[in-house]
Amino acid sequence: MGIAGGGQLGTMMILESRGLPLSFHVYVESRDEPAVQIATDVYDREDFHSFVDSSDYVTFEFEHVRREMLEYAQKNGKLRPGFKSVELKMERHLEKEFLRDNSFPVGEFIIAKNGKEALEKSRHFEKFVIKRSTGGYDGKGQYYYHNMEGFPENEDGYFVVEKYVDYQSEASIICGRDSQGREIFYEPSYNVNKNGILIRNSTGIKDGEAVERMKEIASSLMKKLDYIGIMGIEFFLTEDGPLINEYAPRVHNTGHHTLMGTSISQFENHVRAVMGIPMEDPVTYVPSGIVNVIGTDLSGEAISKILGMGGTRIFMYRKKEIRRKRKMGHICVTAGNTEELNKKERIIEEILYPEGVENYI
Amino acid sequence: MGIAGGGQLGTMMILESRGLPLSFHVYVESRDEPAVQIATDVYDREDFHSFVDSSDYVTFEFEHVRREMLEYAQKNGKLRPGFKSVELKMERHLEKEFLRDNSFPVGEFIIAKNGKEALEKSRHFEKFVIKRSTGGYDGKGQYYYHNMEGFPENEDGYFVVEKYVDYQSEASIICGRDSQGREIFYEPSYNVNKNGILIRNSTGIKDGEAVERMKEIASSLMKKLDYIGIMGIEFFLTEDGPLINEYAPRVHNTGHHTLMGTSISQFENHVRAVMGIPMEDPVTYVPSGIVNVIGTDLSGEAISKILGMGGTRIFMYRKKEIRRKRKMGHICVTAGNTEELNKKERIIEEILYPEGVENYI
Repeated sequence: MGIAGGGQLGTMMILESRGLPLSFHVYVESRDEPAVQIATDVYDREDFHSFVDSSDYVTFEFEHVRREMLEYAQKNGKLRPGFKSVELKMERHLEKEFLRDNSFPVGEFIIAKNGKEALEKSRHFEKFVIKRSTGGYDGKGQYYYHNMEGFPENEDGYFVVEKYVDYQSEASIICGRDSQGREIFYEPSYNVNKNGILIRNSTGIKDGEAVERMKEIASSLMKKLDYIGIMGIEFFLTEDGPLINEYAPRVHNTGHHTLMGTSISQFENHVRAVMGIPMEDPVTYVPSGIVNVIGTDLSGEAISKILGMGGTRIFMYRKKEIRRKRKMGHICVTAGNTEELNKKERIIEEILYPEGVENYI
Repeated sequence: MGIAGGGQLGTMMILESRGLPLSFHVYVESRDEPAVQIATDVYDREDFHSFVDSSDYVTFEFEHVRREMLEYAQKNGKLRPGFKSVELKMERHLEKEFLRDNSFPVGEFIIAKNGKEALEKSRHFEKFVIKRSTGGYDGKGQYYYHNMEGFPENEDGYFVVEKYVDYQSEASIICGRDSQGREIFYEPSYNVNKNGILIRNSTGIKDGEAVERMKEIASSLMKKLDYIGIMGIEFFLTEDGPLINEYAPRVHNTGHHTLMGTSISQFENHVRAVMGIPMEDPVTYVPSGIVNVIGTDLSGEAISKILGMGGTRIFMYRKKEIRRKRKMGHICVTAGNTEELNKKERIIEEILYPEGVENYI
């Protein structure tokens, strides 16, 4: 199996699936990436032909990987999920247009060809957010109507001007599809984001209708893309039902809760689907969620407190340098019910961020 | 953390705990051992001082590790579990005497100082088994009354002559204790052994009294040894209650069922206990068990069939050479109830051993 990217997502694919009789080839930008320590073979940026040639199938842990490699893998019938799924993600306006053109529920938006045009078109909406079409991640390159500081008005290139969605909550679903079209769905989660970064999430969405609707949308989207592998889809839950915010053609950071309290993780199911091995239909045993560890490390005292609570596991990503906004790891949390789960998560948030999470993101 | 031994048990300790911010130092006999690929640092046989010095705590994946290393780690207050627990396991007669002297329930036995004496003393019992005091593992060095072929009558050294226990079933419990004396217990399993080798096992023991008694015995034994870490204890379930067959001062191959359907595996809990990090009190979500893969490999077809059943995960140990009797991996199995679980396990046994397991062990 070839995995493009050696960060935490690639690492967890390998760790969670290492019992399967597979070799893992990792294609990296730098030998410092954590998956390098546990990969069978490592290929550098220039070496993408060998990387693809030596792998039965190739997947990726993030979308912004060298395009030539993806195209070469696709040409050889090895890329899973396929090129279309990832190409749409390379520029935000392509994803948005694809979703709207195929009647998926998305919020209103207008595409602009440069910063100036984006500003002009934003007048169509009372409240809006302007997003750069490329290069945005974890809240970067996004400008909200109430704070347009630093907006690159003179920049060329596509922007998406979105009507600000007045949502009740943010949610996401982790789903998967294999080469025979069999689908699986994990229980969706509520997500708590700040500054565009996921702070924590938890399963146990109360609105059963919204849950069913998210599954239907997920199923349609996977079919439309002839998708193979795990996909994460982020939604805004509104009065009129779920609207897709965006999808990720890969294992997703809102799906880390599948590492505890569920019969199988998103990572192992992704590896299975990509490699043509039957996926496991996941069973959620207990409500579960995560709290992300962002811009900070875990002291021994914090570890003792967090694991002493019970129903918790720690997943640190072994990144060498702590930086503001940087995801250093996450804590998996389970509890007998969602109230208790949310209480535990809030306690963990206080342990991790004694001065408030705003100071770390 | 220092781990003596780089086989499957050491490997799973690292894989299951790799989210914790720990480095794993592995002490090996050969660089071919699988844990070498994922360890932070590797130490060879001669290098045991550096191995111990560089580790905060040292544990082991099997008992028959270099004695000087264990003694050196013990002297430095780093060996967990402690030397006493492992010393008793180096010679079977020491373990037996210790258990009897401390009023633990064990079957009748007599210790002999050589093969000739063992044969003489076996006349005390109508049915018996004679076991070499050292070097026995997976049924090796054990001679049953009905087939004494190859018995080393002229050999010097301790033997244990055991009255053959007419047991209803074999069972085991995985338990753990931390440095503050807190204890945890996994749900015990029934074990199906052939020729002294575990073929499969499953949780869901019906006799609640036997379960409680096994936990009591486990608790007493851990206290008596001032134990730190995970321990596996094998029992014979008899009409008069459970009798200890033997204990293992480490993670145990009858505890692999904790890798699926349970809130946390024996491996992560062992690492936590050894490193002074709070253990997780395990919750068994659904009945679970394993089928061992012995003396054979998994074909692609077998993988598809086994994972296609659902409720299954595969753990192959990445050993280079397949040999008769050699544990190459195991299949974790879960099901809604124990009947279904046992049915699934029997189907998997047929997939793995089309000519009967006797031909592989």
